[in-house]
Amino acid sequence: MSQPSFHGIFPYLVSPVDEASGQVQTETLRRLVEHLIGAGVHGLSPLGSTGEFAYLDADQRRAIVQTVVQAAGGRVPVVPGVAATATADAIRQAQDYLALGADGIILILQSYFPLPRSAVERYFQEVAEAVPCPVVIYTNPNYLGVDVTPEMVASLAQVPNIQYVKDASSNTGRILTILNKTGGRIHVFSASAHVPVLVFLLGGVGWMAGPACLIPRQCVELYHLAQAQRWQEAMALQKPMWRLNELFARYSLAGCVKAGLALQGFDVGVPIAPQEPVSAQAMAEIRDVLESLDALAPAPA
Amino acid sequence: MSQPSFHGIFPYLVSPVDEASGQVQTETLRRLVEHLIGAGVHGLSPLGSTGEFAYLDADQRRAIVQTVVQAAGGRVPVVPGVAATATADAIRQAQDYLALGADGIILILQSYFPLPRSAVERYFQEVAEAVPCPVVIYTNPNYLGVDVTPEMVASLAQVPNIQYVKDASSNTGRILTILNKTGGRIHVFSASAHVPVLVFLLGGVGWMAGPACLIPRQCVELYHLAQAQRWQEAMALQKPMWRLNELFARYSLAGCVKAGLALQGFDVGVPIAPQEPVSAQAMAEIRDVLESLDALAPAPA
Amino acid sequence: MSQPSFHGIFPYLVSPVDEASGQVQTETLRRLVEHLIGAGVHGLSPLGSTGEFAYLDADQRRAIVQTVVQAAGGRVPVVPGVAATATADAIRQAQDYLALGADGIILILQSYFPLPRSAVERYFQEVAEAVPCPVVIYTNPNYLGVDVTPEMVASLAQVPNIQYVKDASSNTGRILTILNKTGGRIHVFSASAHVPVLVFLLGGVGWMAGPACLIPRQCVELYHLAQAQRWQEAMALQKPMWRLNELFARYSLAGCVKAGLALQGFDVGVPIAPQEPVSAQAMAEIRDVLESLDALAPAPA
Amino acid sequence: MSQPSFHGIFPYLVSPVDEASGQVQTETLRRLVEHLIGAGVHGLSPLGSTGEFAYLDADQRRAIVQTVVQAAGGRVPVVPGVAATATADAIRQAQDYLALGADGIILILQSYFPLPRSAVERYFQEVAEAVPCPVVIYTNPNYLGVDVTPEMVASLAQVPNIQYVKDASSNTGRILTILNKTGGRIHVFSASAHVPVLVFLLGGVGWMAGPACLIPRQCVELYHLAQAQRWQEAMALQKPMWRLNELFARYSLAGCVKAGLALQGFDVGVPIAPQEPVSAQAMAEIRDVLESLDALAPAPA
Repeated sequence: MSQPSFHGIFPYLVSPVDEASGQVQTETLRRLVEHLIGAGVHGLSPLGSTGEFAYLDADQRRAIVQTVVQAAGGRVPVVPGVAATATADAIRQAQDYLALGADGIILILQSYFPLPRSAVERYFQEVAEAVPCPVVIYTNPNYLGVDVTPEMVASLAQVPNIQYVKDASSNTGRILTILNKTGGRIHVFSASAHVPVLVFLLGGVGWMAGPACLIPRQCVELYHLAQAQRWQEAMALQKPMWRLNELFARYSLAGCVKAGLALQGFDVGVPIAPQEPVSAQAMAEIRDVLESLDALAPAPA
Repeated sequence: MSQPSFHGIFPYLVSPVDEASGQVQTETLRRLVEHLIGAGVHGLSPLGSTGEFAYLDADQRRAIVQTVVQAAGGRVPVVPGVAATATADAIRQAQDYLALGADGIILILQSYFPLPRSAVERYFQEVAEAVPCPVVIYTNPNYLGVDVTPEMVASLAQVPNIQYVKDASSNTGRILTILNKTGGRIHVFSASAHVPVLVFLLGGVGWMAGPACLIPRQCVELYHLAQAQRWQEAMALQKPMWRLNELFARYSLAGCVKAGLALQGFDVGVPIAPQEPVSAQAMAEIRDVLESLDALAPAPA
Repeated sequence: MSQPSFHGIFPYLVSPVDEASGQVQTETLRRLVEHLIGAGVHGLSPLGSTGEFAYLDADQRRAIVQTVVQAAGGRVPVVPGVAATATADAIRQAQDYLALGADGIILILQSYFPLPRSAVERYFQEVAEAVPCPVVIYTNPNYLGVDVTPEMVASLAQVPNIQYVKDASSNTGRILTILNKTGGRIHVFSASAHVPVLVFLLGGVGWMAGPACLIPRQCVELYHLAQAQRWQEAMALQKPMWRLNELFARYSLAGCVKAGLALQGFDVGVPIAPQEPVSAQAMAEIRDVLESLDALAPAPA
Repeated sequence: MSQPSFHGIFPYLVSPVDEASGQVQTETLRRLVEHLIGAGVHGLSPLGSTGEFAYLDADQRRAIVQTVVQAAGGRVPVVPGVAATATADAIRQAQDYLALGADGIILILQSYFPLPRSAVERYFQEVAEAVPCPVVIYTNPNYLGVDVTPEMVASLAQVPNIQYVKDASSNTGRILTILNKTGGRIHVFSASAHVPVLVFLLGGVGWMAGPACLIPRQCVELYHLAQAQRWQEAMALQKPMWRLNELFARYSLAGCVKAGLALQGFDVGVPIAPQEPVSAQAMAEIRDVLESLDALAPAPA
């Protein structure tokens, strides 16, 4: 099987926003993009969970996509998150981001009222059919209050441009079920709730990841070892990296990544209120883990 | 204890929106407001759950508040919902709605990442402190993914303009706990997840309610019987009314209220996609319940 | 409607068991029964949640039922809990307790694997059909991992001796739904997760209650006020009593009741391990609440 | 690291019980044991979830352990489940099973009331200290209503004979966390909620498994491929085997394994009531999967 167009390490970018004015810090974001591309990542995903999409308004989202697309300059694909409760809102966002130069979208359904399966599937289908680009279905039953089950993914795989799924359920067996049910029509990206090397062994094509903001080189190396089927070496690299995922699960996700980037010299600010900055205890643990992974080096100018 | 300024029956208004254009149907909304005030309701709450706040963008929300304030013309207080994940967004909405003439707000916290108790309380406190009007705290742990517990309500009761709470948890005992803990500093409105007459017996001051869109006269009568402490009569009236709440819980809330209003001659349209219109089965049950409550009469011109 | 044979206040008895030997402390249990009957309770329920049924083996359960039946001596009905995962086990227990002189059973389904609705209903039906006595269905979705919904109660009401339900769901509206759906064929007892006076206003026939071990006179008075439809007075009595229910919810249920009885001079021991005795903090709060309810008087010799 | 004494494939044995009499079908159980040992399994675990421990009384449990120990005749270790809510009951069971010849125990905490972390840890510690054999901690937060988190496993690893954990949480990342936190002091067995080959890559020592009753040879081969670090081949074998795990998750676990064994000629009966036998639809799917895995061969006489 030849590689799909989206594959490898896609850092989930943080959203640096000025606390007082709400202004997107475009210069900081550009520096981060440059740094990550320099470290060898294969794509960029703004407006994921790590990117605090749920806390940003329409203007802030647009500014972030525009900045990332311009900074990437076509060197790697940019695949932003499109998150909405209403179908019309999702379509509008998707079309906006594509007009700004995005190469695909990660499609997210936020819920309020419970929805029947047919309504969930219709959302994904209608948004996908309204855009010409590849679509990544995102599911995270813990945070979103709605699930896209393997059965639903299998149905949605009939829509031609629904080509990827990113499962953030923490139930790694679901990924094997998705792959078995879709027989190669759907490519799977790991989320940070899974151990990425295991998803690679299952046949996953990459990792869309908050940690890759902080340790991009290690993530890329992990991916290459898996590509080379050097599983024991990949596992040996994976073990210490997993501590970072554990921190993200224990403390606040966006807060941790922003704190780690600050330690590396990126002035990305604090998580958007009412989220709180990480505690001194969490900060010390983040520093400790980054140090142990040789990832505290100052960011390039 | 004299009556607080907000009390009695506050219908949760639906949001009639044109399916194709997304335009708010202001004329329909005005007719509904007129009809409800004519039926004796004590206030109006647009942008609650029933009002599908979670599916509306900023412009739609503003149009709805403006329409309701103008249509009410000062005859009853208008208390719209303000729902956000980010503190800054909530403050902006609240100030907008007050500038449009709202008399208070129902403050709702939507969640994505889990928040510590301190962050939840800070959200409510900071938004309340940014506005001069009375604030109703709304909690609905089932749909919102975050809870405002009785302990948190008791803390927040220290903020002078946090004066009301609407608890939609379905755990009626919590209301007695809130009243015991706050000793009269906080007034409680029933949600439709509770049996309203029970909340009145506990000391609740009113009912913010989707059903009151459909059976406003009966709701007002129930409130008056409770005010007169005619509990057996109130209970006799409550029993058949409860079937409407059961329908809302079994089927989709906004879909049911919109369907019932259509049966009464209000052209409020269908719930916003990807929500689905109610099934034929649900429609038949809604008609049956409305008929049994003598509430199928055509709406006044 | 004439009163059903089971009605009024049924204390949920604790199970005093010697920590080292596992021996049931029959003398203490007899004193407690005598004390409660003297306070006017209408029945007795050993082996409920408060009675730690889930921590007792078959011999301990039998010893407790035998002791309570003998101590009651026919003055009030004895209605023990029958809890099992397997139908055959429940039938065996039920027949044993009836042979020992019980007047009815509270039937509880413990779950391990998820069960379809048909299996849940069959359990209740088959056990009820195997005994000649009245059956109280117990449901507590929080602790039991399986629910008996109002729809299922309505189906089961077809079984002649299924005549009561005790709903411990904390969702008080469900009780109105059950009453509406069963039209008088099923009588409802309040659990301590509800505010009992509200369940009485809805039409409930009594309260099966852990708190009634500690404040039996107050519980009986509450019931009488409700019977007399003196709702405001009942509510005034209910408010301070509710603090006891709050303690049970905040701390461990069996631990709290056992601790309170110890303060009253009943040597009922600690909850069965690995449950822990209540903390000093909880003990102080229990003492404070009992004192405020004038219920710290020493137990009669 | 040399292999720990328990490792490899441990089928979770079903419990064949006569529906009418409740008698354990010892002859059928002996045949099954003989068949599994012949297929190369490394140990036997009666009284796991698959073994319906939650539906068996004390006498049935003892009969099953006795039968399995005798049939195994020392050829492979027998490690039965010990499940209880009360510490004393667990100690009694554990000592009984060891007296009957068991080689270790899988220790399970069933819950009713919520327990603080200290109480959960004390249960495992006190039972482990009361027996001389190796102890496997079992955790299944979905079915048991109580969790043993990686942090708790790390604490309990201080108890010398707590040497294994079987995690049935479906969150595969937790296994890496446990291994990282315990640094080799705790060995991990896969449960069927995980993809076993992934647990092997993480460093797991074996698989305690319902599926191994039905496809023992394939499970043993999977384990050997993983031991030989032939990960691609292991994965190729794993993929079709996973369908069996999917069936167990979709339908009832014990029902599926019993149905599959019946198809293979083992007269193990139906799951214990109120559990229901699998549907015709499920039966057809089980047959189909077993056929695809070449596992429908008649059982040896």
